[in-house]
Amino acid sequence: MSSDLSLHLSDQQQIITSSEWETLILSQASLLNRIKAGETCYSDSLGWLDVAQWASPDALKTIQAKADEIRAKADVFVIIGVGGSNQAARAIITALPNPGGPEILYAGLSISAHYMDQILRQLAGKSVYINVIAKNFETMEPGISFRALRHYLYQQYGDKASERIVATGTTGSHLHQLSQQQGYSFFAFPDDIGGRFTALSTVGLLPMAIAGIDIFSLVQGAQEMQQELFQQPVTENIAVRYAAIRNLLYQKGYRMEMLAFFEPRFNYFAKWWTQLFAESEGKQGKGLYPVVGSYSEDLHSIGQFVQEGTPVLFETFLDVNMQDASVLLPADDTDDRFAYLDNQDFWTINKVAFEATLEAHSAKLPCVTIQVPAINAHTFGKLFYLFEFSCYVSGSMLGVNPFDQPGVEAYKSVMFKKLGK
Amino acid sequence: MSSDLSLHLSDQQQIITSSEWETLILSQASLLNRIKAGETCYSDSLGWLDVAQWASPDALKTIQAKADEIRAKADVFVIIGVGGSNQAARAIITALPNPGGPEILYAGLSISAHYMDQILRQLAGKSVYINVIAKNFETMEPGISFRALRHYLYQQYGDKASERIVATGTTGSHLHQLSQQQGYSFFAFPDDIGGRFTALSTVGLLPMAIAGIDIFSLVQGAQEMQQELFQQPVTENIAVRYAAIRNLLYQKGYRMEMLAFFEPRFNYFAKWWTQLFAESEGKQGKGLYPVVGSYSEDLHSIGQFVQEGTPVLFETFLDVNMQDASVLLPADDTDDRFAYLDNQDFWTINKVAFEATLEAHSAKLPCVTIQVPAINAHTFGKLFYLFEFSCYVSGSMLGVNPFDQPGVEAYKSVMFKKLGK
Repeated sequence: MSSDLSLHLSDQQQIITSSEWETLILSQASLLNRIKAGETCYSDSLGWLDVAQWASPDALKTIQAKADEIRAKADVFVIIGVGGSNQAARAIITALPNPGGPEILYAGLSISAHYMDQILRQLAGKSVYINVIAKNFETMEPGISFRALRHYLYQQYGDKASERIVATGTTGSHLHQLSQQQGYSFFAFPDDIGGRFTALSTVGLLPMAIAGIDIFSLVQGAQEMQQELFQQPVTENIAVRYAAIRNLLYQKGYRMEMLAFFEPRFNYFAKWWTQLFAESEGKQGKGLYPVVGSYSEDLHSIGQFVQEGTPVLFETFLDVNMQDASVLLPADDTDDRFAYLDNQDFWTINKVAFEATLEAHSAKLPCVTIQVPAINAHTFGKLFYLFEFSCYVSGSMLGVNPFDQPGVEAYKSVMFKKLGK
Repeated sequence: MSSDLSLHLSDQQQIITSSEWETLILSQASLLNRIKAGETCYSDSLGWLDVAQWASPDALKTIQAKADEIRAKADVFVIIGVGGSNQAARAIITALPNPGGPEILYAGLSISAHYMDQILRQLAGKSVYINVIAKNFETMEPGISFRALRHYLYQQYGDKASERIVATGTTGSHLHQLSQQQGYSFFAFPDDIGGRFTALSTVGLLPMAIAGIDIFSLVQGAQEMQQELFQQPVTENIAVRYAAIRNLLYQKGYRMEMLAFFEPRFNYFAKWWTQLFAESEGKQGKGLYPVVGSYSEDLHSIGQFVQEGTPVLFETFLDVNMQDASVLLPADDTDDRFAYLDNQDFWTINKVAFEATLEAHSAKLPCVTIQVPAINAHTFGKLFYLFEFSCYVSGSMLGVNPFDQPGVEAYKSVMFKKLGK
């Protein structure tokens, strides 16, 4: 099966030798087979591996029906969630248009009083719906933000407020019980998927659908990617190749991977990617630290460091193939010294800026390029699945459990003690 | 002189020994004296060192008068600039309220056709003013964005369009000549300050004033910081102490510094700080890579890595002292298991989250805390000056020229060739 999403490595310094590469790749055949067969040690975390498990046609229909109902009635839709509970939805909602749909706000991200106050101020006089998303419903940010927003809804709508609340939690959880008691709509948070791998389940799909994203196309893209990764032999497998590059460069002393792109629409996708790899691999004193290059803006900032600073960073570029916007640079009679760009399209100039950056950077550091067919729901489905699968492979190569996050508990236990929980 | 802005280091593993510390700090007395006297080798880059040079009372009055005029007439004000030409203004404008002022848009950041198209769409039917900011006016992003926006203005307003254009460029530059030919308002970009150090000059101050920022208070804060740093002896000097911590940790193998905070209002300030240090120090194969922790959100993402990942990162926290927002968590009769927080203020809970994070993280890695009096113009003035001065000291300790950015040229020369310039 051929793919329109492809991966290339430019390694002009030959940091990775071809024999190292072949040895590593061939040794991963057994890992790839184990992953495809389903590793029992991670059986409580692999609900995402077969996309159809939590994104079946029936599930999508139920989600879309609820989304259509809310889209018809809401002026504002507030997503209450943090980390894996909102990152995937925010990644795609901020990247794609939402014609005629409700305004989307994000709460439960922080405990900032100023931020919460700003959210509440934006609700006045509008028809508001909320979706609280929490796997175990003990995390403080969504918990207290939900309380504040619920309070607002009951003040505005009285007993009818519960009709405006959708809860996404694990079946049988306290949030599930609350939903039954209070009459909230309830959707299942997969009990066999950790937050950062839930893009293609109700967690991501319901808010995406409410924001007008074509979730059928998204899931289709993810399933195509799944098929490709399950069928590609290990030597051609994009996920294995990406994971191998990351691990070999880590072994050689690289400490940061930069996800770089020339469309600021990817900014929140990069935050999703950051969480995925930082939480999955940053443990046991190991891991590449994920950083972001939002180019061309950041070329005027961290670009200097990338080119000449401490050489511990490599780059992974997202290169979009399909043009989907056009602004022509009008010629005029003002001699602004940009005449060499008269009547050129910003799209074309931006592409040249990317190519020039790749050429300049790859002379100094390893550069991966991922060819991305387009910026649309179908492609985001592919990207979500590709990086999740790659992260599983990469963490396994690194020798860590890609699915836990024990280090996140450290500050929480101190905090709960201080707060008298 | 006592300061309400202070700096503390928690170094529980004693990575930095007290003798190392004393040796380094005492050896910096001569550097501090040289800096205060003005180093001739950097004479073309030190226009920011004495705040009054480019932010005199007369300059502020002229800026404020222009700002008042535009505030009275504009629905939308577009800042066209990239890197040092917009970062300081955006940092403070996005952090502070702009009651009754024009909507602020940012163009010239990228070459994305989609982004430019979105900017143009937001102008329809509104009274638009623009400020193009460019030191040498060869940088492509502001250059072509200015052309596109200028074209829009001339379509809308005919010959009156020039009244809506403010240009900020160096005196005698091509942009200056264009302004005279075309009748734009013109403000001087300091010829003796590089972009990333221009917060407290027309470059930053004019757009800030148009967005309703109290630039008099801002400059006052910066001047107080200047006085403090010029008067504090080397052993107590905040800038020297901060620079010494950074350099000692770099020498010991740390490769990243994370600027962390619990108010997302600092997000764009962090981008300003990132450019300042990445461009000033990332050269000759050296430098700490600057990263950002926008907590508590990022505790659910990179927090895992900070706590348990590859140990090459230390943190610098901004801790805000003065409460300036309040949202109480209302008690209700829904048993949501957050009753332990009934009637608490988000502000207070957030403070506890910070304290818990500092406690948990400082058990694993060095943590600097900068006590910030408040989030207001006066404090931002202090912070801009503090970090600029610290960056000068820190880069000097590192043995690099903090004021150049030769690595930014690499991709540009390839790009200009490809574009046939």
